[in-house]
Amino acid sequence: MSWVEDELREQPAALERFLARERDEVLGHAHELMRRDVRYLFIASRGSSANAARYAQYVFGAFNRLPVAFSTPSLYTLYDAPPRLDGALAVAISQSGESPDVVSVLAEAKLQQRPTIAITNEPESPLAEQADWVVPLQAGTERAVAATKTYLNSVAAVALLSAALARDEARLDSLQAIPAAVTEQVERSLSAAADFDRYAGSDGGVVVARGLNLGTAFEIALKIRELSGIPYEPFSSADLLHGPIAALLPGRPVLVVAPSGPALASVRDSLAKLRERGASVVAISDDAGVLAAADVALPLARTVPEWLSPLTTVVPGQVAAIRLATLRGGDIDRPAGLTKVTLTR
Amino acid sequence: MSWVEDELREQPAALERFLARERDEVLGHAHELMRRDVRYLFIASRGSSANAARYAQYVFGAFNRLPVAFSTPSLYTLYDAPPRLDGALAVAISQSGESPDVVSVLAEAKLQQRPTIAITNEPESPLAEQADWVVPLQAGTERAVAATKTYLNSVAAVALLSAALARDEARLDSLQAIPAAVTEQVERSLSAAADFDRYAGSDGGVVVARGLNLGTAFEIALKIRELSGIPYEPFSSADLLHGPIAALLPGRPVLVVAPSGPALASVRDSLAKLRERGASVVAISDDAGVLAAADVALPLARTVPEWLSPLTTVVPGQVAAIRLATLRGGDIDRPAGLTKVTLTR
Repeated sequence: MSWVEDELREQPAALERFLARERDEVLGHAHELMRRDVRYLFIASRGSSANAARYAQYVFGAFNRLPVAFSTPSLYTLYDAPPRLDGALAVAISQSGESPDVVSVLAEAKLQQRPTIAITNEPESPLAEQADWVVPLQAGTERAVAATKTYLNSVAAVALLSAALARDEARLDSLQAIPAAVTEQVERSLSAAADFDRYAGSDGGVVVARGLNLGTAFEIALKIRELSGIPYEPFSSADLLHGPIAALLPGRPVLVVAPSGPALASVRDSLAKLRERGASVVAISDDAGVLAAADVALPLARTVPEWLSPLTTVVPGQVAAIRLATLRGGDIDRPAGLTKVTLTR
Repeated sequence: MSWVEDELREQPAALERFLARERDEVLGHAHELMRRDVRYLFIASRGSSANAARYAQYVFGAFNRLPVAFSTPSLYTLYDAPPRLDGALAVAISQSGESPDVVSVLAEAKLQQRPTIAITNEPESPLAEQADWVVPLQAGTERAVAATKTYLNSVAAVALLSAALARDEARLDSLQAIPAAVTEQVERSLSAAADFDRYAGSDGGVVVARGLNLGTAFEIALKIRELSGIPYEPFSSADLLHGPIAALLPGRPVLVVAPSGPALASVRDSLAKLRERGASVVAISDDAGVLAAADVALPLARTVPEWLSPLTTVVPGQVAAIRLATLRGGDIDRPAGLTKVTLTR
């Protein structure tokens, strides 16, 4: 079995380990952070970590009423003009903790005496050294170039941090039930992996979501690209109408990430327009109507609260990415041209 | 001649009109805004306007040291959980001023008693009603669905606002020279429009930039998509190494936006990796080395300060988009499936 498939299967255990080891720690530190003058979050990240950061933008906005800004590393590394961070809580998300541009964002925030958090799988990394507080991802060694369990644990870290900052016991409790839901989802998605085979010959596709799962659409598209080399693109179902719909080619797959929740209606409305354009719709959903209207149904094993659904909705996409890559050949643990640790300046 | 080509040619005049009518107005109001407790910008936008907002993120960061956060309209329209905007200056950019989601972001900021600015071509629009201060784009009627002159004037409005907030006379002066540079660029790009013909049969491409021109890469990709229906994708030359490079197919065009300035070295470095992967490189540049190393050179007519280069670098891309669309047929003023005013909720 490939490393990436091993690691896909390890996700529930990695998630459980993260929650068991870090829950109380995060709850304790969140209290300290709440005493500071934080008006918004300033997040540095790249790649899969940036997709976890997109999730943060929605979860901190919806539940903590905190706006989220993303750093632009080139202001640090190319323009030597880092912004002033008065009012910011600086957060870096990085599996390896090594990318110099992400490290430089946190170092500058520290210099400006702003509070800093590093969410990383490497608590001894250069990134961790710059942080007031490190949230270790506890994912264990990830050998495949494509992130799976570190992505899931980054999303869980964001969810935990949001609930802890809000001291929201109900949300903290619902997080505990997620590893079991992910276990079911991994099994269900693996058993239906062949459902995606009809798209193995296609040379492109689209992934659509909105709101809390927009980051999921980005992560699924990135995973398919990294593993199979097929260009899949992520879009918000809202932005779709502003231009990208012009680029949809008839017969190409459109994965629609549509779990139950406030964003479901918006994503469901885009289905009609997508089908008018001749797209072949693949639904990742627990909604019977959406699943029935799709060309290919990838059902969610369990309905979870929407704010935690990104931990399960990404799984069918990960499985599809591995399946497409396997059918198309090549080394899926070390896709051509990619490296596990990317040192971007 | 098509509307969109007319409007492409009208850009220098529209830019000149905007600067003549709005420069002193913006300088006056910027003074008021500077007296408030603004710690960061919070920008609402969609489509081409969101590409002008990407430019804002770099120009306000580099020259005003202000972080920029982008609003997530679904927090307003789907989740009914708008973030608290303490410390924010809320800015909306919208050609039509009609999209309900962008309007709702500004309305909420006003409710929270934060300062609000609307940058719009329709000063009587619903968006303008929600703003403390309207910056009219003065672009005249834009009939083609694809934005050209309203995009350029949105970028100019951001540039003007940044220089005015900083009371930077040198930058304000250099802005005055830009309409002449755009005139030259439009002429030069139109006279070399056929240079892009070899890609008319290609079914996809990539646009790469970094820093101040990242928004340009997004706008060129969107313009090609909207007009020709060919899926072009924008990437940061930094993010390219984290995954999307896996999706590059041999022989496909990669447009590299590489004007002189601090970002040039980073974009130039990505050229080698792109060519290793078999991409056909098209350079939009004033750098002799970059132009010589490219498969197709789209030279910039004049070297302008990098912070204003997005006003000229986008032009070769707009011309390429119109050319591709013309060669492939179809109604380029009303591309299938798109509408001028998109009412997103």
